[in-house]
Amino acid sequence: MSTDTSWFYENFEQSGSAIGFRVTGKLEEVQTRFQKIEIWDTTDWGKLMVIDGAIMLTSRDNFLYHEMMAHPVLFTHSNPKRVVIIGGGDCGTLREVLKHKEVEQAVQVDIDEQVTRMAEKYFPELCDSNADPRVELLFDDGIEFMKNLPPETVDVIIVDSTDPVGPAEGLFNEAFYSSCVKALRSGGILVQQSESPLVHLPLIKAMRHHMAAAGFAHCRTLTFPQPCYPTGWWSCTLARKGGELVGFRERGAHSKVFQTRYYNVDTHRAALAVPEFMRELGD
Amino acid sequence: MSTDTSWFYENFEQSGSAIGFRVTGKLEEVQTRFQKIEIWDTTDWGKLMVIDGAIMLTSRDNFLYHEMMAHPVLFTHSNPKRVVIIGGGDCGTLREVLKHKEVEQAVQVDIDEQVTRMAEKYFPELCDSNADPRVELLFDDGIEFMKNLPPETVDVIIVDSTDPVGPAEGLFNEAFYSSCVKALRSGGILVQQSESPLVHLPLIKAMRHHMAAAGFAHCRTLTFPQPCYPTGWWSCTLARKGGELVGFRERGAHSKVFQTRYYNVDTHRAALAVPEFMRELGD
Repeated sequence: MSTDTSWFYENFEQSGSAIGFRVTGKLEEVQTRFQKIEIWDTTDWGKLMVIDGAIMLTSRDNFLYHEMMAHPVLFTHSNPKRVVIIGGGDCGTLREVLKHKEVEQAVQVDIDEQVTRMAEKYFPELCDSNADPRVELLFDDGIEFMKNLPPETVDVIIVDSTDPVGPAEGLFNEAFYSSCVKALRSGGILVQQSESPLVHLPLIKAMRHHMAAAGFAHCRTLTFPQPCYPTGWWSCTLARKGGELVGFRERGAHSKVFQTRYYNVDTHRAALAVPEFMRELGD
Repeated sequence: MSTDTSWFYENFEQSGSAIGFRVTGKLEEVQTRFQKIEIWDTTDWGKLMVIDGAIMLTSRDNFLYHEMMAHPVLFTHSNPKRVVIIGGGDCGTLREVLKHKEVEQAVQVDIDEQVTRMAEKYFPELCDSNADPRVELLFDDGIEFMKNLPPETVDVIIVDSTDPVGPAEGLFNEAFYSSCVKALRSGGILVQQSESPLVHLPLIKAMRHHMAAAGFAHCRTLTFPQPCYPTGWWSCTLARKGGELVGFRERGAHSKVFQTRYYNVDTHRAALAVPEFMRELGD
Protein backbone atom coordinates (compact mmCIF):
# COMPACT_ATOMS: atom_id res chain seq x y z
CA MET A 1 0.00 0.00 0.00
CA SER A 2 1.13 3.53 -0.71
CA THR A 3 2.56 5.33 2.28
CA ASP A 4 0.78 8.50 1.16
CA THR A 5 -2.42 7.65 2.98
CA SER A 6 -4.13 9.23 5.92
CA TRP A 7 -7.50 8.88 7.62
CA PHE A 8 -10.51 11.11 7.11
CA TYR A 9 -12.76 11.07 10.17
CA GLU A 10 -16.19 12.52 10.70
CA ASN A 11 -16.80 13.07 14.38
CA PHE A 12 -20.53 13.07 15.13
CA GLU A 13 -20.69 15.50 18.02
CA GLN A 14 -24.31 14.68 18.80
CA SER A 15 -23.78 10.93 19.18
CA GLY A 16 -20.17 10.91 20.41
CA SER A 17 -19.18 8.45 17.70
CA ALA A 18 -17.12 8.69 14.54
CA ILE A 19 -16.73 7.08 11.12
CA GLY A 20 -13.58 7.23 9.02
CA PHE A 21 -12.08 6.13 5.73
CA ARG A 22 -8.48 5.76 4.63
CA VAL A 23 -7.85 8.37 1.96
CA THR A 24 -5.10 9.02 -0.55
CA GLY A 25 -5.94 12.68 -1.05
CA LYS A 26 -8.50 15.40 -1.65
CA LEU A 27 -9.52 15.62 -5.31
CA GLU A 28 -11.56 18.79 -5.18
CA GLU A 29 -13.13 21.26 -2.80
CA VAL A 30 -15.75 23.84 -3.68
CA GLN A 31 -17.51 26.37 -1.49
CA THR A 32 -20.96 27.05 -2.90
CA ARG A 33 -23.56 29.58 -1.78
CA PHE A 34 -24.99 26.87 0.44
CA GLN A 35 -22.24 24.60 1.65
CA LYS A 36 -18.70 23.28 1.26
CA ILE A 37 -18.39 20.17 -0.91
CA GLU A 38 -15.25 18.02 -0.77
CA ILE A 39 -14.34 14.97 -2.86
CA TRP A 40 -11.72 12.56 -1.51
CA ASP A 41 -10.16 9.46 -3.00
CA THR A 42 -10.09 6.45 -0.68
CA THR A 43 -8.04 3.26 -0.71
CA ASP A 44 -11.01 0.87 -0.43
CA TRP A 45 -14.28 2.78 -0.81
CA GLY A 46 -13.82 4.57 -4.13
CA LYS A 47 -14.68 8.27 -4.06
CA LEU A 48 -15.98 9.99 -0.93
CA MET A 49 -18.24 13.07 -0.94
CA VAL A 50 -18.29 15.27 2.15
CA ILE A 51 -20.61 18.25 2.66
CA ASP A 52 -19.82 20.70 5.45
CA GLY A 53 -17.69 18.02 7.08
CA ALA A 54 -20.45 15.38 6.94
CA ILE A 55 -19.87 12.21 4.93
CA MET A 56 -22.55 11.99 2.22
CA LEU A 57 -21.59 8.88 0.26
CA THR A 58 -18.85 6.59 -0.96
CA SER A 59 -18.73 4.78 -4.29
CA ARG A 60 -18.75 1.45 -2.48
CA ASP A 61 -21.62 1.63 -0.04
CA ASN A 62 -24.11 4.17 -1.47
CA PHE A 63 -26.14 1.39 -3.11
CA LEU A 64 -27.61 0.51 0.29
CA TYR A 65 -29.04 3.95 0.97
CA HIS A 66 -30.11 4.72 -2.59
CA GLU A 67 -31.88 1.41 -3.11
CA MET A 68 -33.67 1.66 0.22
CA MET A 69 -34.78 5.24 -0.40
CA ALA A 70 -36.31 4.28 -3.75
CA HIS A 71 -37.57 0.70 -3.96
CA PRO A 72 -39.56 0.20 -0.73
CA VAL A 73 -41.69 3.31 -1.31
CA LEU A 74 -42.18 2.58 -5.02
CA PHE A 75 -43.17 -1.04 -4.38
CA THR A 76 -45.51 0.12 -1.61
CA HIS A 77 -47.39 2.55 -3.88
CA SER A 78 -49.82 0.72 -6.16
CA ASN A 79 -48.97 2.72 -9.29
CA PRO A 80 -46.29 5.39 -8.87
CA LYS A 81 -46.41 7.57 -11.99
CA ARG A 82 -45.25 10.96 -10.84
CA VAL A 83 -42.30 11.13 -8.44
CA VAL A 84 -40.69 14.18 -6.83
CA ILE A 85 -37.26 13.97 -5.21
CA ILE A 86 -36.31 16.77 -2.83
CA GLY A 87 -32.55 16.92 -2.39
CA GLY A 88 -30.83 13.86 -3.86
CA GLY A 89 -28.36 15.94 -5.85
CA ASP A 90 -25.91 13.05 -6.25
CA CYS A 91 -28.62 11.42 -8.43
CA GLY A 92 -28.18 7.95 -6.90
CA THR A 93 -31.78 7.79 -5.68
CA LEU A 94 -33.02 9.15 -9.01
CA ARG A 95 -31.20 6.36 -10.83
CA GLU A 96 -33.01 3.75 -8.73
CA VAL A 97 -36.39 5.47 -9.24
CA LEU A 98 -35.95 5.38 -13.03
CA LYS A 99 -35.56 1.59 -12.94
CA HIS A 100 -39.33 1.46 -12.33
CA LYS A 101 -41.16 1.37 -15.66
CA GLU A 102 -44.37 2.67 -14.04
CA VAL A 103 -42.69 6.01 -13.32
CA GLU A 104 -43.68 8.48 -16.04
CA GLN A 105 -42.03 11.54 -14.60
CA ALA A 106 -39.33 12.13 -11.99
CA VAL A 107 -38.67 15.71 -10.93
CA GLN A 108 -35.63 16.30 -8.75
CA VAL A 109 -35.21 19.55 -6.84
CA ASP A 110 -31.84 20.09 -5.16
CA ILE A 111 -30.95 23.53 -3.88
CA ASP A 112 -27.29 23.21 -4.84
CA GLU A 113 -26.40 22.52 -8.48
CA GLN A 114 -22.76 21.89 -7.56
CA VAL A 115 -23.70 18.62 -5.79
CA THR A 116 -24.94 17.27 -9.11
CA ARG A 117 -21.97 18.66 -11.03
CA MET A 118 -19.58 16.96 -8.60
CA ALA A 119 -21.55 13.72 -8.84
CA GLU A 120 -21.39 13.81 -12.64
CA LYS A 121 -17.62 14.16 -12.39
CA TYR A 122 -16.78 11.77 -9.55
CA PHE A 123 -19.78 9.41 -9.34
CA PRO A 124 -20.75 9.15 -13.03
CA GLU A 125 -22.36 5.75 -12.45
CA LEU A 126 -25.03 7.49 -10.34
CA CYS A 127 -25.81 9.99 -13.09
CA ASP A 128 -25.97 7.69 -16.09
CA SER A 129 -29.78 7.90 -16.26
CA ASN A 130 -30.00 11.69 -16.01
CA ALA A 131 -30.67 12.02 -19.74
CA ASP A 132 -33.78 9.84 -19.42
CA PRO A 133 -36.66 11.84 -21.00
CA ARG A 134 -38.76 11.26 -17.87
CA VAL A 135 -36.29 13.31 -15.79
CA GLU A 136 -36.55 16.96 -14.88
CA LEU A 137 -33.58 18.30 -12.90
CA LEU A 138 -34.25 21.54 -11.05
CA PHE A 139 -31.85 23.45 -8.85
CA ASP A 140 -34.09 25.33 -6.53
CA ASP A 141 -35.46 25.53 -3.01
CA GLY A 142 -37.37 22.29 -2.36
CA ILE A 143 -39.53 23.88 0.32
CA GLU A 144 -40.78 26.59 -2.06
CA PHE A 145 -41.15 24.05 -4.86
CA MET A 146 -43.42 21.82 -2.76
CA LYS A 147 -45.45 24.80 -1.59
CA ASN A 148 -46.22 25.81 -5.18
CA LEU A 149 -47.08 22.41 -6.65
CA PRO A 150 -50.66 22.03 -7.88
CA PRO A 151 -52.70 19.95 -5.39
CA GLU A 152 -53.08 16.20 -5.83
CA THR A 153 -50.58 15.79 -8.68
CA VAL A 154 -47.84 13.63 -7.14
CA ASP A 155 -47.75 9.92 -6.24
CA VAL A 156 -44.43 9.65 -4.38
CA ILE A 157 -42.23 12.26 -2.70
CA ILE A 158 -38.71 11.22 -1.73
CA VAL A 159 -36.92 13.55 0.67
CA ASP A 160 -33.26 12.64 0.23
CA SER A 161 -31.70 15.40 2.26
CA THR A 162 -28.73 16.11 4.48
CA ASP A 163 -29.15 16.09 8.26
CA PRO A 164 -31.80 18.39 9.79
CA VAL A 165 -29.39 21.29 10.25
CA GLY A 166 -28.43 23.99 7.74
CA PRO A 167 -30.19 24.01 4.35
CA ALA A 168 -32.20 20.85 5.15
CA GLU A 169 -33.64 21.98 8.48
CA GLY A 170 -36.91 23.18 6.91
CA LEU A 171 -37.55 19.73 5.44
CA PHE A 172 -38.34 18.22 8.84
CA ASN A 173 -41.24 20.36 10.05
CA GLU A 174 -45.02 20.44 9.85
CA ALA A 175 -45.19 23.29 7.34
CA PHE A 176 -43.17 21.32 4.79
CA TYR A 177 -45.15 18.14 5.42
CA SER A 178 -48.40 20.09 4.90
CA SER A 179 -47.18 21.12 1.44
CA CYS A 180 -46.39 17.47 0.75
CA VAL A 181 -49.83 16.28 1.87
CA LYS A 182 -51.43 18.87 -0.40
CA ALA A 183 -49.33 17.91 -3.43
CA LEU A 184 -49.91 14.17 -3.06
CA ARG A 185 -52.81 12.33 -4.60
CA SER A 186 -54.85 10.26 -2.16
CA GLY A 187 -52.86 7.13 -1.35
CA GLY A 188 -49.65 8.96 -2.19
CA ILE A 189 -46.58 8.34 -0.08
CA LEU A 190 -43.76 10.48 1.26
CA VAL A 191 -40.47 8.83 2.24
CA GLN A 192 -37.74 10.69 4.07
CA GLN A 193 -34.34 9.66 5.36
CA SER A 194 -34.71 9.64 9.13
CA GLU A 195 -31.23 9.19 10.61
CA SER A 196 -30.01 6.40 12.92
CA PRO A 197 -32.60 4.43 14.91
CA LEU A 198 -30.00 3.89 17.64
CA VAL A 199 -29.17 7.51 18.36
CA HIS A 200 -31.92 9.56 16.71
CA LEU A 201 -35.10 7.90 17.97
CA PRO A 202 -36.35 11.21 19.47
CA LEU A 203 -35.89 12.84 16.05
CA ILE A 204 -37.81 10.04 14.35
CA LYS A 205 -40.64 10.43 16.86
CA ALA A 206 -40.73 14.19 16.30
CA MET A 207 -40.77 13.74 12.51
CA ARG A 208 -43.67 11.32 12.75
CA HIS A 209 -45.52 13.63 15.08
CA HIS A 210 -45.16 16.49 12.56
CA MET A 211 -46.19 14.17 9.70
CA ALA A 212 -49.35 13.16 11.53
CA ALA A 213 -50.11 16.76 12.48
CA ALA A 214 -49.77 17.75 8.82
CA GLY A 215 -52.43 15.25 7.85
CA PHE A 216 -50.63 12.04 6.90
CA ALA A 217 -52.77 9.04 7.83
CA HIS A 218 -50.06 6.50 8.71
CA CYS A 219 -46.29 6.32 9.20
CA ARG A 220 -43.78 3.47 9.23
CA THR A 221 -40.03 3.54 9.81
CA LEU A 222 -37.78 1.11 7.91
CA THR A 223 -34.18 0.29 8.82
CA PHE A 224 -31.15 -0.79 6.80
CA PRO A 225 -27.35 -0.90 7.05
CA GLN A 226 -25.36 2.11 5.85
CA PRO A 227 -21.68 2.05 6.88
CA CYS A 228 -20.78 5.66 6.09
CA TYR A 229 -23.49 7.20 8.33
CA PRO A 230 -23.41 7.48 12.16
CA THR A 231 -23.67 4.03 13.84
CA GLY A 232 -23.70 2.31 10.41
CA TRP A 233 -27.43 1.72 10.72
CA TRP A 234 -29.93 4.03 9.12
CA SER A 235 -33.64 4.52 8.58
CA CYS A 236 -36.22 6.03 6.32
CA THR A 237 -39.77 6.91 7.34
CA LEU A 238 -42.77 6.45 5.06
CA ALA A 239 -45.96 8.50 5.49
CA ARG A 240 -49.12 7.83 3.50
CA LYS A 241 -51.91 10.24 2.64
CA GLY A 242 -55.40 8.80 3.01
CA GLY A 243 -54.51 5.22 3.79
CA GLU A 244 -52.58 2.70 5.85
CA LEU A 245 -49.09 1.46 5.04
CA VAL A 246 -49.81 -2.25 5.00
CA GLY A 247 -47.74 -4.60 2.91
CA PHE A 248 -46.18 -3.90 -0.48
CA ARG A 249 -46.34 -5.25 -4.05
CA GLU A 250 -44.40 -8.42 -3.25
CA ARG A 251 -45.10 -10.00 -6.62
CA GLY A 252 -43.86 -6.89 -8.39
CA ALA A 253 -40.73 -6.79 -6.25
CA HIS A 254 -40.14 -10.51 -6.77
CA SER A 255 -40.45 -10.29 -10.55
CA LYS A 256 -38.61 -7.00 -11.00
CA VAL A 257 -36.53 -7.01 -14.18
CA PHE A 258 -33.84 -4.61 -12.95
CA GLN A 259 -30.74 -5.33 -10.92
CA THR A 260 -30.21 -4.37 -7.31
CA ARG A 261 -27.42 -5.23 -4.88
CA TYR A 262 -29.23 -5.04 -1.54
CA TYR A 263 -32.95 -4.69 -2.19
CA ASN A 264 -35.23 -7.67 -2.76
CA VAL A 265 -38.51 -8.94 -1.31
CA ASP A 266 -36.73 -10.38 1.73
CA THR A 267 -34.67 -7.29 2.58
CA HIS A 268 -37.81 -5.16 2.11
CA ARG A 269 -39.61 -7.32 4.67
CA ALA A 270 -36.50 -7.22 6.89
CA ALA A 271 -36.50 -3.41 6.78
CA LEU A 272 -40.06 -3.48 8.14
CA ALA A 273 -39.10 -5.52 11.21
CA VAL A 274 -39.42 -3.50 14.40
CA PRO A 275 -36.69 -4.19 16.99
CA GLU A 276 -37.91 -4.28 20.59
CA PHE A 277 -36.41 -0.91 21.49
CA MET A 278 -38.25 0.73 18.56
CA ARG A 279 -41.71 -0.53 19.54
CA GLU A 280 -42.43 2.82 21.18
CA LEU A 281 -42.85 4.20 17.64
CA GLY A 282 -46.02 2.13 17.43
CA ASP A 283 -45.29 0.40 14.09
CA MET B 1 -19.54 19.04 27.77
CA SER B 2 -16.18 18.69 29.46
CA THR B 3 -13.28 19.97 27.42
CA ASP B 4 -11.22 16.99 28.57
CA THR B 5 -12.43 14.75 25.77
CA SER B 6 -10.65 13.21 22.83
CA TRP B 7 -11.50 10.62 20.19
CA PHE B 8 -10.53 6.97 20.26
CA TYR B 9 -10.37 5.56 16.73
CA GLU B 10 -9.92 2.02 15.54
CA ASN B 11 -8.54 2.00 12.01
CA PHE B 12 -9.46 -1.25 10.25
CA GLU B 13 -6.44 -1.70 7.98
CA GLN B 14 -8.07 -4.52 6.05
CA SER B 15 -11.20 -2.59 5.08
CA GLY B 16 -9.79 0.93 4.98
CA SER B 17 -12.51 2.19 7.29
CA ALA B 18 -12.59 3.34 10.90
CA ILE B 19 -14.91 3.60 13.88
CA GLY B 20 -14.44 5.98 16.79
CA PHE B 21 -15.93 7.08 20.07
CA ARG B 22 -15.49 10.27 22.08
CA VAL B 23 -13.69 9.34 25.29
CA THR B 24 -13.01 11.08 28.56
CA GLY B 25 -10.07 8.91 29.54
CA LYS B 26 -8.55 5.45 29.89
CA LEU B 27 -9.71 3.71 33.06
CA GLU B 28 -7.41 0.72 32.99
CA GLU B 29 -4.95 -1.14 30.81
CA VAL B 30 -3.64 -4.63 31.39
CA GLN B 31 -1.24 -6.70 29.33
CA THR B 32 -2.05 -10.38 29.81
CA ARG B 33 -0.21 -13.44 28.49
CA PHE B 34 -2.48 -13.30 25.46
CA GLN B 35 -3.39 -9.71 24.67
CA LYS B 36 -3.61 -6.10 25.79
CA ILE B 37 -6.97 -5.12 27.29
CA GLU B 38 -7.95 -1.46 27.64
CA ILE B 39 -11.03 0.06 29.24
CA TRP B 40 -12.05 3.60 28.26
CA ASP B 41 -14.83 5.84 29.48
CA THR B 42 -16.87 7.48 26.72
CA THR B 43 -19.17 10.50 26.70
CA ASP B 44 -22.16 8.73 25.10
CA TRP B 45 -21.52 4.97 24.91
CA GLY B 46 -20.71 4.05 28.49
CA LYS B 47 -17.58 1.96 28.93
CA LEU B 48 -15.52 0.79 25.95
CA MET B 49 -13.41 -2.40 25.95
CA VAL B 50 -10.53 -2.62 23.48
CA ILE B 51 -8.36 -5.72 22.93
CA ASP B 52 -5.09 -5.34 21.04
CA GLY B 53 -6.41 -2.09 19.59
CA ALA B 54 -9.68 -3.67 18.39
CA ILE B 55 -12.97 -2.39 19.80
CA MET B 56 -14.78 -5.28 21.52
CA LEU B 57 -17.87 -3.68 23.01
CA THR B 58 -19.47 -0.59 24.48
CA SER B 59 -22.05 -0.50 27.26
CA ARG B 60 -24.57 1.07 24.91
CA ASP B 61 -24.54 -1.12 21.82
CA ASN B 62 -23.40 -4.59 22.96
CA PHE B 63 -27.01 -5.77 23.32
CA LEU B 64 -27.28 -6.09 19.55
CA TYR B 65 -24.38 -8.51 19.19
CA HIS B 66 -25.03 -10.48 22.36
CA GLU B 67 -28.72 -11.00 21.68
CA MET B 68 -28.06 -12.04 18.09
CA MET B 69 -25.32 -14.47 19.08
CA ALA B 70 -27.63 -16.19 21.58
CA HIS B 71 -31.32 -16.08 20.68
CA PRO B 72 -31.43 -17.06 16.97
CA VAL B 73 -29.42 -20.23 17.54
CA LEU B 74 -31.30 -21.17 20.72
CA PHE B 75 -34.71 -20.63 19.11
CA THR B 76 -33.57 -22.62 16.06
CA HIS B 77 -32.58 -25.66 18.14
CA SER B 78 -35.63 -27.67 19.21
CA ASN B 79 -34.46 -28.26 22.79
CA PRO B 80 -31.10 -26.70 23.71
CA LYS B 81 -30.06 -28.24 27.03
CA ARG B 82 -26.29 -28.17 26.98
CA VAL B 83 -24.55 -25.08 25.60
CA VAL B 84 -20.83 -24.43 25.18
CA ILE B 85 -19.52 -20.88 24.61
CA ILE B 86 -16.00 -20.57 23.22
CA GLY B 87 -14.61 -17.11 23.95
CA GLY B 88 -17.30 -14.75 25.19
CA GLY B 89 -15.24 -13.64 28.19
CA ASP B 90 -17.25 -10.45 28.69
CA CYS B 91 -20.18 -12.75 29.61
CA GLY B 92 -22.75 -10.79 27.61
CA THR B 93 -23.63 -13.75 25.39
CA LEU B 94 -23.73 -16.05 28.42
CA ARG B 95 -26.23 -13.75 30.09
CA GLU B 96 -28.56 -14.01 27.08
CA VAL B 97 -28.16 -17.81 26.93
CA LEU B 98 -29.19 -18.13 30.57
CA LYS B 99 -32.49 -16.39 29.85
CA HIS B 100 -33.57 -19.65 28.16
CA LYS B 101 -35.17 -21.95 30.72
CA GLU B 102 -34.49 -25.01 28.55
CA VAL B 103 -30.75 -24.56 29.03
CA GLU B 104 -29.58 -26.91 31.79
CA GLN B 105 -25.86 -26.24 31.54
CA ALA B 106 -23.78 -23.47 29.99
CA VAL B 107 -20.02 -23.96 29.91
CA GLN B 108 -17.94 -20.97 28.87
CA VAL B 109 -14.31 -21.39 27.85
CA ASP B 110 -12.31 -18.20 27.37
CA ILE B 111 -8.55 -18.36 27.14
CA ASP B 112 -8.02 -15.11 29.03
CA GLU B 113 -9.43 -14.80 32.55
CA GLN B 114 -8.64 -11.08 32.60
CA VAL B 115 -11.38 -10.38 30.03
CA THR B 116 -13.95 -11.68 32.51
CA ARG B 117 -12.35 -9.88 35.44
CA MET B 118 -12.47 -6.59 33.52
CA ALA B 119 -16.07 -7.25 32.50
CA GLU B 120 -17.05 -7.90 36.14
CA LYS B 121 -15.51 -4.56 37.05
CA TYR B 122 -16.63 -2.34 34.16
CA PHE B 123 -19.61 -4.17 32.63
CA PRO B 124 -21.20 -5.70 35.76
CA GLU B 125 -24.62 -5.80 34.05
CA LEU B 126 -23.23 -8.45 31.66
CA CYS B 127 -21.97 -10.63 34.49
CA ASP B 128 -24.99 -10.55 36.80
CA SER B 129 -25.98 -14.12 35.90
CA ASN B 130 -22.53 -15.65 36.36
CA ALA B 131 -23.51 -17.13 39.72
CA ASP B 132 -26.34 -19.11 38.11
CA PRO B 133 -25.84 -22.78 39.13
CA ARG B 134 -26.09 -23.82 35.47
CA VAL B 135 -22.88 -21.90 34.66
CA GLU B 136 -19.38 -23.31 34.48
CA LEU B 137 -16.71 -20.69 33.76
CA LEU B 138 -13.43 -22.12 32.48
CA PHE B 139 -10.33 -20.17 31.53
CA ASP B 140 -8.63 -22.41 29.06
CA ASP B 141 -7.84 -23.02 25.40
CA GLY B 142 -11.17 -23.46 23.62
CA ILE B 143 -9.61 -25.44 20.78
CA GLU B 144 -8.20 -28.05 23.19
CA PHE B 145 -11.43 -28.03 25.19
CA MET B 146 -13.53 -28.86 22.13
CA LYS B 147 -11.11 -31.57 21.04
CA ASN B 148 -11.44 -33.35 24.38
CA LEU B 149 -15.22 -33.19 24.83
CA PRO B 150 -17.02 -36.56 24.87
CA PRO B 151 -18.79 -37.15 21.54
CA GLU B 152 -22.44 -36.19 21.08
CA THR B 153 -22.89 -34.37 24.37
CA VAL B 154 -23.57 -30.76 23.30
CA ASP B 155 -26.66 -29.13 21.73
CA VAL B 156 -25.37 -25.67 20.89
CA ILE B 157 -21.84 -24.28 20.48
CA ILE B 158 -21.45 -20.50 20.39
CA VAL B 159 -18.10 -19.25 19.12
CA ASP B 160 -17.96 -15.68 20.42
CA SER B 161 -14.41 -14.86 19.54
CA THR B 162 -12.22 -11.96 18.46
CA ASP B 163 -11.27 -11.57 14.80
CA PRO B 164 -9.53 -14.50 13.07
CA VAL B 165 -6.04 -13.29 13.92
CA GLY B 166 -4.03 -13.89 17.11
CA PRO B 167 -5.53 -16.19 19.76
CA ALA B 168 -8.77 -16.70 17.78
CA GLU B 169 -7.19 -17.76 14.48
CA GLY B 170 -7.54 -21.47 15.25
CA LEU B 171 -11.30 -21.09 15.73
CA PHE B 172 -11.93 -20.56 12.02
CA ASN B 173 -10.49 -23.75 10.47
CA GLU B 174 -11.63 -27.25 9.58
CA ALA B 175 -9.81 -28.98 12.45
CA PHE B 176 -11.72 -26.91 15.02
CA TYR B 177 -15.03 -27.43 13.24
CA SER B 178 -14.38 -31.20 13.17
CA SER B 179 -14.08 -31.17 16.96
CA CYS B 180 -17.36 -29.27 17.10
CA VAL B 181 -19.16 -31.73 14.83
CA LYS B 182 -17.95 -34.59 17.01
CA ALA B 183 -19.06 -32.94 20.26
CA LEU B 184 -22.53 -32.01 18.98
CA ARG B 185 -25.52 -34.29 19.21
CA SER B 186 -27.32 -34.90 15.92
CA GLY B 187 -29.33 -31.79 15.10
CA GLY B 188 -26.94 -29.72 17.19
CA ILE B 189 -25.97 -26.25 15.98
CA LEU B 190 -22.79 -24.21 15.98
CA VAL B 191 -23.01 -20.42 15.68
CA GLN B 192 -19.98 -18.25 15.12
CA GLN B 193 -19.51 -14.52 14.70
CA SER B 194 -18.55 -14.08 11.05
CA GLU B 195 -17.50 -10.46 10.60
CA SER B 196 -19.00 -7.86 8.23
CA PRO B 197 -20.99 -9.09 5.22
CA LEU B 198 -19.92 -6.00 3.30
CA VAL B 199 -16.17 -6.40 3.61
CA HIS B 200 -15.61 -9.98 4.77
CA LEU B 201 -17.70 -12.01 2.34
CA PRO B 202 -14.63 -14.05 1.24
CA LEU B 203 -13.99 -14.92 4.91
CA ILE B 204 -17.62 -15.99 5.38
CA LYS B 205 -17.38 -18.19 2.28
CA ALA B 206 -14.14 -19.75 3.53
CA MET B 207 -15.67 -20.41 6.97
CA ARG B 208 -18.68 -22.10 5.42
CA HIS B 209 -16.44 -24.16 3.17
CA HIS B 210 -14.48 -25.37 6.21
CA MET B 211 -17.72 -26.04 8.12
CA ALA B 212 -19.05 -28.20 5.29
CA ALA B 213 -15.74 -30.00 4.92
CA ALA B 214 -15.80 -30.80 8.65
CA GLY B 215 -19.16 -32.51 8.26
CA PHE B 216 -21.81 -29.88 9.02
CA ALA B 217 -24.92 -30.55 6.94
CA HIS B 218 -26.14 -26.99 6.39
CA CYS B 219 -25.03 -23.38 6.97
CA ARG B 220 -26.86 -20.05 7.09
CA THR B 221 -25.49 -16.56 7.66
CA LEU B 222 -27.58 -14.02 9.61
CA THR B 223 -26.99 -10.26 9.62
CA PHE B 224 -27.64 -7.52 12.17
CA PRO B 225 -26.54 -3.98 13.02
CA GLN B 226 -23.53 -3.51 15.33
CA PRO B 227 -22.20 0.08 15.41
CA CYS B 228 -18.86 -0.60 17.13
CA TYR B 229 -17.64 -3.16 14.57
CA PRO B 230 -16.24 -2.43 11.08
CA THR B 231 -18.96 -1.06 8.73
CA GLY B 232 -21.52 -1.14 11.57
CA TRP B 233 -23.12 -4.25 10.10
CA TRP B 234 -22.23 -7.69 11.33
CA SER B 235 -23.04 -11.36 10.86
CA CYS B 236 -23.10 -14.72 12.52
CA THR B 237 -23.07 -18.05 10.72
CA LEU B 238 -25.05 -21.08 11.89
CA ALA B 239 -24.03 -24.63 10.97
CA ARG B 240 -26.15 -27.67 11.78
CA LYS B 241 -25.05 -31.26 12.27
CA GLY B 242 -27.31 -33.83 10.64
CA GLY B 243 -30.09 -31.54 9.45
CA GLU B 244 -31.19 -28.47 7.57
CA LEU B 245 -31.49 -25.00 9.08
CA VAL B 246 -35.10 -24.32 8.15
CA GLY B 247 -37.21 -21.99 10.25
CA PHE B 248 -37.08 -21.51 13.99
CA ARG B 249 -39.39 -21.90 17.02
CA GLU B 250 -41.46 -18.82 16.20
CA ARG B 251 -44.08 -19.55 18.84
CA GLY B 252 -41.38 -19.93 21.46
CA ALA B 253 -39.74 -16.69 20.40
CA HIS B 254 -43.08 -14.92 20.30
CA SER B 255 -44.07 -16.03 23.79
CA LYS B 256 -40.65 -15.64 25.43
CA VAL B 257 -40.97 -14.41 28.99
CA PHE B 258 -37.61 -12.59 29.11
CA GLN B 259 -36.76 -9.07 27.95
CA THR B 260 -34.69 -8.22 24.92
CA ARG B 261 -33.94 -4.87 23.29
CA TYR B 262 -33.33 -5.90 19.67
CA TYR B 263 -34.33 -9.55 19.29
CA ASN B 264 -37.87 -10.66 18.54
CA VAL B 265 -39.59 -12.89 15.99
CA ASP B 266 -39.50 -10.12 13.37
CA THR B 267 -35.83 -9.22 13.78
CA HIS B 268 -34.97 -12.93 13.76
CA ARG B 269 -36.73 -13.27 10.39
CA ALA B 270 -35.07 -10.04 9.25
CA ALA B 271 -31.64 -11.44 10.11
CA LEU B 272 -32.36 -14.38 7.80
CA ALA B 273 -33.05 -12.13 4.79
CA VAL B 274 -30.37 -12.52 2.13
CA PRO B 275 -29.44 -9.26 0.35
CA GLU B 276 -28.86 -9.60 -3.39
CA PHE B 277 -25.08 -9.30 -3.12
CA MET B 278 -24.98 -12.16 -0.58
CA ARG B 279 -26.88 -14.63 -2.75
CA GLU B 280 -23.59 -16.19 -3.81
CA LEU B 281 -23.48 -17.78 -0.34
CA GLY B 282 -26.37 -19.95 -1.47
CA ASP B 283 -28.69 -19.33 1.50
